[in-house]
Amino acid sequence: RYGYFGRDTPEVVKIMFCNISGCLTEGRIFISSSGTEMISLNTRDTAGIRMLKNEGVEVILLTSNLDPVAKALSQNVSHRLGCEVMSVHEKPLEDLKDIVKKRGLSWNDVAYMGNDEIDVDCLNVAGLSAVPSDAPVVAKNGTKYICKALGGKGAVREFAEHILLQKRKAKSQLEQDRIDRTTC
Amino acid sequence: RYGYFGRDTPEVVKIMFCNISGCLTEGRIFISSSGTEMISLNTRDTAGIRMLKNEGVEVILLTSNLDPVAKALSQNVSHRLGCEVMSVHEKPLEDLKDIVKKRGLSWNDVAYMGNDEIDVDCLNVAGLSAVPSDAPVVAKNGTKYICKALGGKGAVREFAEHILLQKRKAKSQLEQDRIDRTTC
Amino acid sequence: RYGYFGRDTPEVVKIMFCNISGCLTEGRIFISSSGTEMISLNTRDTAGIRMLKNEGVEVILLTSNLDPVAKALSQNVSHRLGCEVMSVHEKPLEDLKDIVKKRGLSWNDVAYMGNDEIDVDCLNVAGLSAVPSDAPVVAKNGTKYICKALGGKGAVREFAEHILLQKRKAKSQLEQDRIDRTTC
Amino acid sequence: RYGYFGRDTPEVVKIMFCNISGCLTEGRIFISSSGTEMISLNTRDTAGIRMLKNEGVEVILLTSNLDPVAKALSQNVSHRLGCEVMSVHEKPLEDLKDIVKKRGLSWNDVAYMGNDEIDVDCLNVAGLSAVPSDAPVVAKNGTKYICKALGGKGAVREFAEHILLQKRKAKSQLEQDRIDRTTC
Repeated sequence: RYGYFGRDTPEVVKIMFCNISGCLTEGRIFISSSGTEMISLNTRDTAGIRMLKNEGVEVILLTSNLDPVAKALSQNVSHRLGCEVMSVHEKPLEDLKDIVKKRGLSWNDVAYMGNDEIDVDCLNVAGLSAVPSDAPVVAKNGTKYICKALGGKGAVREFAEHILLQKRKAKSQLEQDRIDRTTC
Repeated sequence: RYGYFGRDTPEVVKIMFCNISGCLTEGRIFISSSGTEMISLNTRDTAGIRMLKNEGVEVILLTSNLDPVAKALSQNVSHRLGCEVMSVHEKPLEDLKDIVKKRGLSWNDVAYMGNDEIDVDCLNVAGLSAVPSDAPVVAKNGTKYICKALGGKGAVREFAEHILLQKRKAKSQLEQDRIDRTTC
Repeated sequence: RYGYFGRDTPEVVKIMFCNISGCLTEGRIFISSSGTEMISLNTRDTAGIRMLKNEGVEVILLTSNLDPVAKALSQNVSHRLGCEVMSVHEKPLEDLKDIVKKRGLSWNDVAYMGNDEIDVDCLNVAGLSAVPSDAPVVAKNGTKYICKALGGKGAVREFAEHILLQKRKAKSQLEQDRIDRTTC
Repeated sequence: RYGYFGRDTPEVVKIMFCNISGCLTEGRIFISSSGTEMISLNTRDTAGIRMLKNEGVEVILLTSNLDPVAKALSQNVSHRLGCEVMSVHEKPLEDLKDIVKKRGLSWNDVAYMGNDEIDVDCLNVAGLSAVPSDAPVVAKNGTKYICKALGGKGAVREFAEHILLQKRKAKSQLEQDRIDRTTC
């Protein structure tokens, strides 16, 4: 898309995929004797997602079908954050390919936040990617950005600010390029 | 109100505004598959609010309409703490102005506790203001007092004790002023 | 009771009073939109209470009427731990006096675990007393023993082991005294 | 079973017993005014259990009848993790003996994860055993492996990876032995 500017183009994220477990939460799931499940979200992270959406970044939350968050719970989170929730399989990359294609995007337009081994493929291929500071080494090795914050304690907010900073950098560079071309 | 004593008058807080999320809580909101929401309060903080009320300080709790605490939950908290709960918008200062005016107070009579960027205006304008120690830098820069305690873990108690200390100082200075005047 | 042995008699605790909030819990109370309240207990602490009861120490749990735990919740905790739960007022010492008298005990037979200012009188007067490591200074100054563990994270267990150690010491000293007297 | 290879045979675990309280959880149990109980699991730990099951290790979760997890809650956990849950008494070793015998296994084929004094017998006798890093000293002294991770925060995952590593070592040694014998 922006390829003809050459290799220096900064990433302009259009869509962000984010694991619920371990990124948006601390990885804990509460299970009760009455059969309900519960997770906890942090206001700072939900503010981060709001910031992304305000700047036109679509946010899609991911749950793993290996360790699923109860459907009713996903829908409550989805409703609260105003984001689509999507269930992925053992190879999340396969599940996301279709979405990226349908939107007419390239992987450079994608930000991905994960926290374990199965996320490594996506962390590698996405234009911007991050893991919380408490992710296992295998995930840290595959990512482009390691948050200072822990999962469920501000990691999503930190990555959101990182994405928006890149977006602003990209915008000002595009402006500069336009000026350069017109002044040639 | 106390202005004619000159610039040395210490603050005598009449009303305190306090964010629920991140100040009275750790910023976590629990969401369950059954549709209920849950937050956690700390006994030390609720004791702090009781101390303020015992000394005649009105306490009003704030929720943000950007990331609202469920109405039923707010009412439970309100009932437990015996405080009014109020929903504020993106510019809390606008929402609070009316209340301060209606009560016939000046901003010097107001204490404000917040924990994020949207609180900065109020932190600036209030006679006394505080943020928990885990607030982002932007909030810390705008406040008059930075708590040693974390949000949801004693920050409200710490600020309450700070307010009461100022109140006591103010009282004894007023006494002193009265004595000085009568002995002139 | 053991007074005629002189001042060296170690404490033999017959009854233990223990705050629920801040000692048995971390001081957090969870409040939900459906009106239920929730606290969390730690297996290590509940094991400590079981140890005390196995050695013949009665355990009575205290809630404050200033910041009450919901009645239904108290009863659930009471039932789970097999301990009576009692509501105390602003001066817990007044409430406990009657119980100590009725049981025909002296304050030397009492262990008390608290975590805030209102507990200081009881911490002073009880034969053995403790606060968790995260108690405020005012409570730490009034107690005989400061736990290394935090409230809700092993403090009750630690104090229970301390009490049982004293009990064992007292027993062996009583044995020794008996031997000394018969061999005179 | 593998005894005729001599004393060098590494452990090949066929079954793992794991305490729910303090190993799979942080040792906290949430009690609500509505009578429900709740525990929290960590995605990292549940992934560890899934890894074991994928490699053919049976996993049985243990609750203590001294401090039982509500039956309905056990069943929910059991269903979520696809593991049998079993209630043990004050001497867990007695309860597990039958199971080990029925399966035709020796204790060398068993992995055990516990976190307190009552687990020491099992920690001693099992081929592989572990405790979380926050277990009391008495349990640490009795175990073969001390996790770096805390209970409820990755300890089960860490032990699972340890078991699978031993399994792989054992397999490659068995292969080597077979080659050695055929080449004799």
